[in-house]
Amino acid sequence: MPNTKAYAAYNAQDPLKPFDFDRRDVRPNDVQIEILFCGVCHSDIHQARDEWGGSIYPMVPGHEIVGRVIKTGEQVTKFKPGDIAGVGVLVDSCRVCKHCERDMENYCVEGMTGTYNSMERDGKTIAQGGYSTQIVVDEKYVLHVSDKLDLKAVAPLLCAGITTYSPLRYANVGKGTKVGVAGLGGLGHMGVKFAASFGAEVTMLSTSPNKEADAKRLGAHHFLLTSDEAQMKKYEGYFDVILNCVSANHSYEKYLNLLGLEGKMLVVGLPSENPQLSPFALITNRRSIVGSMIGGMKETQEMLDYCAEHNIVADVEVIKMQEINEAYARMLRGDVHYRFVIDLESLKK
Amino acid sequence: MPNTKAYAAYNAQDPLKPFDFDRRDVRPNDVQIEILFCGVCHSDIHQARDEWGGSIYPMVPGHEIVGRVIKTGEQVTKFKPGDIAGVGVLVDSCRVCKHCERDMENYCVEGMTGTYNSMERDGKTIAQGGYSTQIVVDEKYVLHVSDKLDLKAVAPLLCAGITTYSPLRYANVGKGTKVGVAGLGGLGHMGVKFAASFGAEVTMLSTSPNKEADAKRLGAHHFLLTSDEAQMKKYEGYFDVILNCVSANHSYEKYLNLLGLEGKMLVVGLPSENPQLSPFALITNRRSIVGSMIGGMKETQEMLDYCAEHNIVADVEVIKMQEINEAYARMLRGDVHYRFVIDLESLKK
Repeated sequence: MPNTKAYAAYNAQDPLKPFDFDRRDVRPNDVQIEILFCGVCHSDIHQARDEWGGSIYPMVPGHEIVGRVIKTGEQVTKFKPGDIAGVGVLVDSCRVCKHCERDMENYCVEGMTGTYNSMERDGKTIAQGGYSTQIVVDEKYVLHVSDKLDLKAVAPLLCAGITTYSPLRYANVGKGTKVGVAGLGGLGHMGVKFAASFGAEVTMLSTSPNKEADAKRLGAHHFLLTSDEAQMKKYEGYFDVILNCVSANHSYEKYLNLLGLEGKMLVVGLPSENPQLSPFALITNRRSIVGSMIGGMKETQEMLDYCAEHNIVADVEVIKMQEINEAYARMLRGDVHYRFVIDLESLKK
Repeated sequence: MPNTKAYAAYNAQDPLKPFDFDRRDVRPNDVQIEILFCGVCHSDIHQARDEWGGSIYPMVPGHEIVGRVIKTGEQVTKFKPGDIAGVGVLVDSCRVCKHCERDMENYCVEGMTGTYNSMERDGKTIAQGGYSTQIVVDEKYVLHVSDKLDLKAVAPLLCAGITTYSPLRYANVGKGTKVGVAGLGGLGHMGVKFAASFGAEVTMLSTSPNKEADAKRLGAHHFLLTSDEAQMKKYEGYFDVILNCVSANHSYEKYLNLLGLEGKMLVVGLPSENPQLSPFALITNRRSIVGSMIGGMKETQEMLDYCAEHNIVADVEVIKMQEINEAYARMLRGDVHYRFVIDLESLKK
């Protein structure tokens, strides 16, 4: 009998369905984790439905994993059974390239091994993600999670958290930095929390006036309705940094015009159509656009430790595994505040 | 009789024709300059033909000006008659905004006063450029030029020079930096010279194999034929910096893929159609796109001093004022190595 119960996409069209499979036996450097919670990232939908191309089926999505260590290999030093542990967007990398050596395994020259929809480095095993009862991962790619935090609300930190934390740090956001956060969803709500926590003056940029109250509850100091031309004019050249979390198709120019001298737009949202870019809006004020993709293992641990210290978690809505297809439908309508998290207990019964 | 002879665009369609007008009388802070040489920038054509919109006619183009001081106002301290002086892309700014105060008058919050196709700060006088026999400019916006250099070849430094110098400095290009320069024209040939002079390893990126020899003569160490897929594959992730001087319509993705970890594409070329941008190419390797527009007065002086010290000038072809329309036609065919410079002596007879 297979050792792991899961939900998988069998192809790009059908809803996710139950799927049983075997995780590998624990190797000397492996940590075996009983999964407690797994966040539902928008990229789960993109990949389950092959919207980025190259999807590998059957696919067990999920890369915002929190669980309890149940077994460790004999050479494991960082974890012991009973520890709370996290697994994020990657479970392996080449480990020897110049990027891996700089603790930036997420930018591995050979390509990181994604937690799902990816081939393990043996070239023949499909990596399967966190919509499942357990996972086995090399300890180098496993993170310590404080049990002081609400674990279901920690899960989204493993992707949405690090995806917003890393570029804000890279852009040196700190006390007094004028930060705009565009797009209030899974990423954006974490961006607001981190930027505010770092001491920045945070403005939520949104097309939805009804998001103002919630943005301020999350820590935003101001709200800019981006569909209001007079307000947009007022904020021209205002921001030092804009964290662009928008995954809907849009023009970059609208946001670029809001940046002041040497202002930076940090891109973490991934629209399906390539945005257009006015070079004039870019050369004005010596503006930059900076891409960022999750973070390396060291920085992800730093982020989790920072969250434990500052009591930062995601705002989540817990669902059962069996409710995943309805959750996807609601996410596509923008109807989630701000992250669905699967309680894997629902799959163990 | 008007004190200044010039050539002007009278509208967007017709060739440039002779135009006589009066420069203002010398004010206490002004420097009056007899123009010796004026470079011909591609933006002269764009503006003369109203390709960027909002052109003001009659328009005397020209913002790469070198000349001899013939008169100074009573409060002028930096210049005396007989000095060699330069005027670049701006002749005024608000002087009090936070950007002006940081010596970045080119990014003046109120908007700089362009040397031509712009209104003076009195709001009623049209600023007229260097296709003319003389110019009167506040000393704050006039630059010292070493008479050790070949003055006709200095003129293009005032725009093409500072436009490439400033972003290379901003990106900390120095010894060993792997720099690609895309587009071998007025800007690109200066980019190659500066990057090589700063100690970088310079690669010319071009679609024209026949530019290889010249690129290497200018200082490039390598040549990458961007239409050759195998070569492009080989250089994937290779560069620290790409100076993008391409003004033809193009996709940014092709160049982004050549950037390594935290690599930067510096944008100074201004295509008429907005380039598309793949966010995936941007988030991979944490890449940036950085815009840059000429430079402030302090940095422009620094650039001119650097050029005097290192004997750097542009490669130019000298023309008479009367040949300007033919020169425009040749520029549009890419038939210039690498900058036309008008000898204003031709207009004084």
